[in-house]
Formats: sequence, C-alpha cells, structure tokens
Amino acid sequence: MSHVLALSGGVGGAKLAAGLSAVLPPQDLTIAVNTGDDFEHLGLTVCPDIDSVVYALAGLNDEKRGWGIADESWRTMERLGALGEAQWFNLGDRDMAMHIARSWRLRAGESLSDVTARLTGALGIAHKVVPMSDAPVRTQVETEQGWLDFQHWFVGEQCKPEVRGIRFAGLPAKPSPGLAAALARPDLAAIVICPSNPFVSVDPILALEGVRAALESRRVPLVAVSPLVGGQAIKGPLAKMLAERGMACNNLAIADHYSGLLDHLLVDHADGAQAHEVRARGVAVSVSATVMCTADDRARLAREALLAAGYAMG
Amino acid sequence: MSHVLALSGGVGGAKLAAGLSAVLPPQDLTIAVNTGDDFEHLGLTVCPDIDSVVYALAGLNDEKRGWGIADESWRTMERLGALGEAQWFNLGDRDMAMHIARSWRLRAGESLSDVTARLTGALGIAHKVVPMSDAPVRTQVETEQGWLDFQHWFVGEQCKPEVRGIRFAGLPAKPSPGLAAALARPDLAAIVICPSNPFVSVDPILALEGVRAALESRRVPLVAVSPLVGGQAIKGPLAKMLAERGMACNNLAIADHYSGLLDHLLVDHADGAQAHEVRARGVAVSVSATVMCTADDRARLAREALLAAGYAMG
Repeated sequence: MSHVLALSGGVGGAKLAAGLSAVLPPQDLTIAVNTGDDFEHLGLTVCPDIDSVVYALAGLNDEKRGWGIADESWRTMERLGALGEAQWFNLGDRDMAMHIARSWRLRAGESLSDVTARLTGALGIAHKVVPMSDAPVRTQVETEQGWLDFQHWFVGEQCKPEVRGIRFAGLPAKPSPGLAAALARPDLAAIVICPSNPFVSVDPILALEGVRAALESRRVPLVAVSPLVGGQAIKGPLAKMLAERGMACNNLAIADHYSGLLDHLLVDHADGAQAHEVRARGVAVSVSATVMCTADDRARLAREALLAAGYAMG
Repeated sequence: MSHVLALSGGVGGAKLAAGLSAVLPPQDLTIAVNTGDDFEHLGLTVCPDIDSVVYALAGLNDEKRGWGIADESWRTMERLGALGEAQWFNLGDRDMAMHIARSWRLRAGESLSDVTARLTGALGIAHKVVPMSDAPVRTQVETEQGWLDFQHWFVGEQCKPEVRGIRFAGLPAKPSPGLAAALARPDLAAIVICPSNPFVSVDPILALEGVRAALESRRVPLVAVSPLVGGQAIKGPLAKMLAERGMACNNLAIADHYSGLLDHLLVDHADGAQAHEVRARGVAVSVSATVMCTADDRARLAREALLAAGYAMG
C-alpha cells in the first residue's frame, strides 16, 4: 500500500484528478482541492473547484461546456433576475443543489471537510476528495480598481482588469485534516500537482500553514503536470497573468514558480523544445499528450504522472 | 380615499387578495399575510402564504396545480435528493428563486417586511403585501406524536395525524409595521378576512399583540368570506380540523370562531340554508358563488365582499 496526494484546482486539475481516481484504488489517493476560489453568493457558499472535481469524479461534469454539471438548466437564475438579484454569476438548477446542500450543512455547524465527505459519499465517490482547508481562505486580485474578490474578477470582470498582485485573505489557515493527514502518511509515495493555475489554484494550497515546508522537506517525488499546451493555457487566465507579471508563458516559468518543490514536470509535446532548459534547472521532464478529452486520456495521463513520480502501481 | 385591510392565508385567501387588488387602487389596500406556516428548510426561509399571495397578484400562480408558480420544474430538488437531502417538501426551480432571494436578504439584516416589499416591487406588484409580523411566529400542531411544526404535519405527514391542539411558537410578537399601520389608519373603511383556514391561517394573525383587540374595537365593518363550500373546505385540512374538534363543518362553526369580530359572513350558495342560523348570532350573511376559478370570479367576489362591508368603491 502506498499513497498518492494530488493537489488540484478546477477544470484542468479535475480532469487529472478523475484520471488518478480511475487508475488508483480509493485507499491510495487523496485529492486536496483549492478553495481559494470559493465565495459567498446569494447566501450560498459556492466552491467551484471542489464541484469541478466532484462532478468529474462522479461522471456528472458537462464535457461540452467544460464546467458545471451535465444536462443543466438555468430557471432559478432567470427568476432571480426577475426578482432583481445579481446575475453576474450564473448558477444552474442542477448545480444549485450542491450549493444549497453545502450551505445549509455549513450553517448547521459541519466543517467543509464533513460536508465534502457527505456530498461525495452521496454521489458514490469512493476516493477521498478534501478541501485544502476548512477555514475560509479567499483569493483576491489587485487591479487598477483595488483588490477584487477572485470570482468578481474572474467571472464578474471576465479577467479583464490587469492583475498587479494576488493575495489570500484568511491566512494564516491550517490545511484540512484530510490534507494534513495525507502529507503526514508514512506510506505517502508520490505527490502530484494537477494541471491547474499555479497562482490561483495551487499557490493557495501552498500558502497554508506547514504545507510548503512539508513539500520542501518531502521524501517522495513531486511531479507536476504543466497547465500549458503550446505556450498557452487551455482555459483560464494563466497566460494573461504570466504576461502581466512580465513572465514568459512557457514551462520555464512553471518550473521556476515551483522552484524547490518540483522533481518532475510533465509537459505537452507542443512544448517539448523547452525540456532541455527545464532539465537544466534540475527538474526532470517527460513529454506527453497532456490535453485530456476522453476518460482514456485522463487515465493515461494519470498513469504517466505516476510513472514520472516512480510510483509502482499495484 | 378609504382603505381596506385584508387578512389572508395561502391559496384560497390569495385568490380573494388578487380579486381585491384587481378592484382597488394600490393606495386603498393592504394585504396582511399569515406567516405562521413559514419554516426553515435546507437553510431557506420558505413563506408559503406570502408566496401564494405574491404569485396570485403577479399572475404567476399555477392555476392548474393550485399552488406555486406556473411553468415549474423540479430539477434542483431531484439533485438534492441525489445528495441525500430531505425530499418531503418539494421546492420548484422557479419558486426556489423566491426562497434564495428572501433568505439571503433576511440574513443580510433586512426584515421580512423589507424583503417582501423588495420582492413585490421587483415583480411589479403595486399593492401593499405585508407579512403579518417580522418576528418568526410558527404554527405547531399537537398530535399523538407530540407537537409538530406545521409544515411537517401539513406536508410531511399529509395532515394525517389527528390534531389535538394548535399553538403559535414565537408569541408574544408584534404585528408588522404594515399591518399595524393599516389597523391604525384613520381612513380605514373595511376589514376583509379572506377565505382561509381560521385555525392556522387567520388565528396566527389574530394572536399578534394588539390585533384581536384592534379588531374587537373596530369602527369599521369586518366581513369574512367563508372558506367552506357545501360543508367542505375546497382545499386544505379545515374540515378535518373541525371534525377533530367535535365541531360541525359549517358556517355556524366559522361564525362562532370569529365571534365578536364578525359583522358579515359571505357564504356560498351551497350553504345558503345556514344563513338563518348565522344571522341569529347577530352576523349578517350574504349568499354568493364563492368558488373562484377565473379572474372575473375573483374580482366579482372581491366586489361583493366590499359591498357587504358597506365599502363605497371609487
């Protein structure tokens, strides 16, 4: 028995998390999910990254739209509009059930870890999906307009305002019991950083008490799957964020960002030319097809990431 | 200018309230709505009677189903079931918007009166619809199983357990500013009790601080439209409740229940034979067609109720 800890953000990360859950038995995997994107909207606690991971693992995710739950409709939101409520963040009717169930359970005193275990259990997900923290850590981005809550910038402003800085309100905060336990497992054999935005999906996890130190002093391989394909982010504002920081949109930037943490970077064929320079930084590189369209893609990439971490599958 | 105060419960009351709003200008009508049926469900504050009145006035009510909003679907509830959440009280997708908007505004510190004014305003309802109280007064019924919250008995147990007693948790409570203001208006000209269940829709209103006393010392006619038709309640548990109290299911029971409050009772043709006995109790009686199927029915019955109250329409 040996355990894998995956750190994941939303959509891209969720795909690899689903792949890992397809190739590893439940007792061998903990998926710790970013909650820096979470926010309170219309009285509901919305956890976009947890929901992306949960929907992907339950096979409920909308493959075509790329986010949310399949077979969605928007009738509650339409009526909320008629009642004069905010329309900038769309919540689907089927998705709404997650937010309602989560919010009332949190208000009733359950931790986000408890609620997440309850919801994944109800959906038949046997693998451990845990929030990065039970404390409300909230990503904020600094723009010309001042500090904006992440979703206001990401969805409300469609990522348009230039990002001058990023901070995580709510720090210091402890990692969730599930993340802390996975980091401390004597049988921990590999750590995988899923292909998620380093700045807003992975950094919030690294910023939790003791997490970066635990990763820096790790005795097991840490492999990251690059979120870049052909020098672009498949989805989300990563390319824009890199440019606004004066950084190149390539895997050197990714490797530098994870400096001291990374043993192995898995990059796409389209970016194979950067392998040499990344290796020169002391990081091993594997080159593969990292775009995950099918369940087979997800499982194959998961296997490749585990292989890169030297993980012996049962 | 002279003002009408209507006291209303849910479905039947809402129909007459809609009729009154059709025949009276906005400044001449206050509809005070029972909130004893309200309850907290899945973290949402559900106000069934307010919503029935609001939907009826906005023309959004589902005529065929007899409750809720037209063109409804149940997709959030279906998913809530998949997440292991309670299924005994069905909330529709379109209806859900009311509960979400109301709940978050209440949590943000608005009173139920504020929220109700906001929601009716957004829906273009010009007439004043006010909750009976801003305090959470909650009807409970005593059964063999002990005291049950009203909706648990009404919807959860489908009214089956015998009712031994009724109480209103949360008393003493003040009437809402809108109800108190209407009662105190120098130009108040008539009070109408809509065809709602006396025990669970009207009594909670009468139990608020000063309301019964204000009605007993009224200087204006009070007319009630009977909720019975042909010795039966069109909808709801009234007939069962009367039987369980050892009372006849007829308009004498209604007149006796409102003893000291009632000047005029409007009864259905089917119950015309009881008119003589009701009159013998000092209550005037009009006989009419009280089943409201169409907008014309609602407006006609509203006019007849106002006529019975001696109200001179503009």
